[in-house]
Amino acid sequence: MSQVTQSIGRLIDELGKLPGIGRKSAERLAYHLLRVPSTEAIGLADAIRDVRENVHYCRSCYNLAEGELCPICSDSRRDSAQICVVEQPRDLMALEQASVYRGLYHVLLGRIAPLDGVGPDQLTIDRLIERVKEGGVREIIMATNPTVEGDGTALYLSNLLAQLPVKVTRLARGITTGSVLEYTNKEVLADALTGRQQL
Amino acid sequence: MSQVTQSIGRLIDELGKLPGIGRKSAERLAYHLLRVPSTEAIGLADAIRDVRENVHYCRSCYNLAEGELCPICSDSRRDSAQICVVEQPRDLMALEQASVYRGLYHVLLGRIAPLDGVGPDQLTIDRLIERVKEGGVREIIMATNPTVEGDGTALYLSNLLAQLPVKVTRLARGITTGSVLEYTNKEVLADALTGRQQL
Repeated sequence: MSQVTQSIGRLIDELGKLPGIGRKSAERLAYHLLRVPSTEAIGLADAIRDVRENVHYCRSCYNLAEGELCPICSDSRRDSAQICVVEQPRDLMALEQASVYRGLYHVLLGRIAPLDGVGPDQLTIDRLIERVKEGGVREIIMATNPTVEGDGTALYLSNLLAQLPVKVTRLARGITTGSVLEYTNKEVLADALTGRQQL
Repeated sequence: MSQVTQSIGRLIDELGKLPGIGRKSAERLAYHLLRVPSTEAIGLADAIRDVRENVHYCRSCYNLAEGELCPICSDSRRDSAQICVVEQPRDLMALEQASVYRGLYHVLLGRIAPLDGVGPDQLTIDRLIERVKEGGVREIIMATNPTVEGDGTALYLSNLLAQLPVKVTRLARGITTGSVLEYTNKEVLADALTGRQQL
């Protein structure tokens, strides 16, 4: 690529490392960053640097945090008797956007995946058990992904937690609001029938 | 979005300003940048900053350059008797990737678009005329986009250049290699028939 300057070539390479950004998109983004007001481009550069310098894991739940505790653990209005277990901070954020849950979270930072070499000891399970043992926790809500690995992780955890005085629940499964029965696949319909609720 | 820390919220906002990156993608990219090794994230931040600090327009052709002249204008092996006129540096790069053209370029930095309030005086047309008048230019190849505005810009330029001793050509139009006639639209087929070439 002798026709691009060294800086542009490097920027295209760096942008191309982002997930879902191919070579063409990386070029488009690079030229965009060259065209916008300098404050906007530098704003992005600073935001990236900032996040890497200031964001760490919450000491209690492993959500992303800027201080010792994340915004949720440090919010005294949240119900500390409920802990919702998720795989990643992004899952936590998705659940928060539903604005329904007022308890705390626990982020596993992954799921048990033997094929990828991820065992229980690489997750933050010890800290979760510790939190339950510290007392005051009434319910653990499993909100791992509804996949083989996510379900397996939830099952593993519920076995571990069975010895402790805590209720373990999981997110409801069923048809999705706004969907069409005719086009809903059989696994989803089976879940919906099995978990049917009284009106 | 009380559930994300301030730095992450800001990073998501900045990423969301990029073209083609919606809110969801911005979140995904932000979490990616939090997860990768710090050197990779900081590498991107530095590349953005670098490009904005070091890249300017070429004094001769308005391509992007790190010195006074862009890599193409400063390459003595290129044929200075041909100038290919493009709208944007990205168009130049696309043409370069074809590895067919060995002449120089002239980047207009836009196209005449009255509806967007872009007139001829906002483009680098004066400098193009100057380059031709300086002598040694045999051919000007119009490579503006094949759109109403791109074609209009090429027409405007060819009228201006008609007074000067230079040949004006434009990129060939026709069916694209690898396409299927049956699914080719009528404008393209009309171009291909009108511009048919002897075998």
